[in-house]
Amino acid sequence: MQISHIEHVGIAVASLEQAIPFYEKLLNTKCYKIEEVADQHVKTAFLKVGETKIELLEATSDESAIAKFIAKNGGHGGIQHMAFAVEDGLANALNELQEKGERVIDKTPRKGADGLNIAFVHPKSTCGALIELCENPNK
Amino acid sequence: MQISHIEHVGIAVASLEQAIPFYEKLLNTKCYKIEEVADQHVKTAFLKVGETKIELLEATSDESAIAKFIAKNGGHGGIQHMAFAVEDGLANALNELQEKGERVIDKTPRKGADGLNIAFVHPKSTCGALIELCENPNK
Repeated sequence: MQISHIEHVGIAVASLEQAIPFYEKLLNTKCYKIEEVADQHVKTAFLKVGETKIELLEATSDESAIAKFIAKNGGHGGIQHMAFAVEDGLANALNELQEKGERVIDKTPRKGADGLNIAFVHPKSTCGALIELCENPNK
Repeated sequence: MQISHIEHVGIAVASLEQAIPFYEKLLNTKCYKIEEVADQHVKTAFLKVGETKIELLEATSDESAIAKFIAKNGGHGGIQHMAFAVEDGLANALNELQEKGERVIDKTPRKGADGLNIAFVHPKSTCGALIELCENPNK
């Protein structure tokens, strides 16, 4: 398994309308895309910093993992997950992790935001952090 | 203020001994440094991925922000903070943020791990995320 860089960091926020202007000011760059991911009940906004994207996530329903994260976090947003870019096949990476005794949430890749194939590693293996692996299917 | 990239992502873990082997396996790289930061009551382990460091943080006392994070997080580790590299002066960046109406935890830079000067932005401004700004004083 070859991981090249952090593809994105996902920040849960109560309001994109409030968060986007702050992160645009901080990073001195414009949000370049807003996308709704209906099956995850989130609206996402993307900004670029170096080789990584900042993915701001707002829940669109209480069923969303983002709504649950914010509720658990005392009503505040926070860094919810980070995603590593896999360069030599996400399906292979998931197999390799499991062969090495690690647990994954998604045993096979599924569609995520921004056109990527994604899968989550189980927090039992990562020592608590929510870690996503992803690949760009058009690369 | 010019931010070039994510300098590091800080992951709170209950045990470095357990966390280091997992992250070495995932990122296919060796932990290159372990450092104790006495005044923050933490022991840190560093791994490199792309242009970013992964900083694993274990509390060395209950007073540590890491111990408090883990306690609040149901006894589990997780992504505790992220740090952006400022290229044109950390003191200037802190002044600029405050002039633009944002709140900071550290009004002037202080010494952090790995030889960096650091300062934290206030979560009230970041929409909840714990965000550090840092500069390499030897650059």
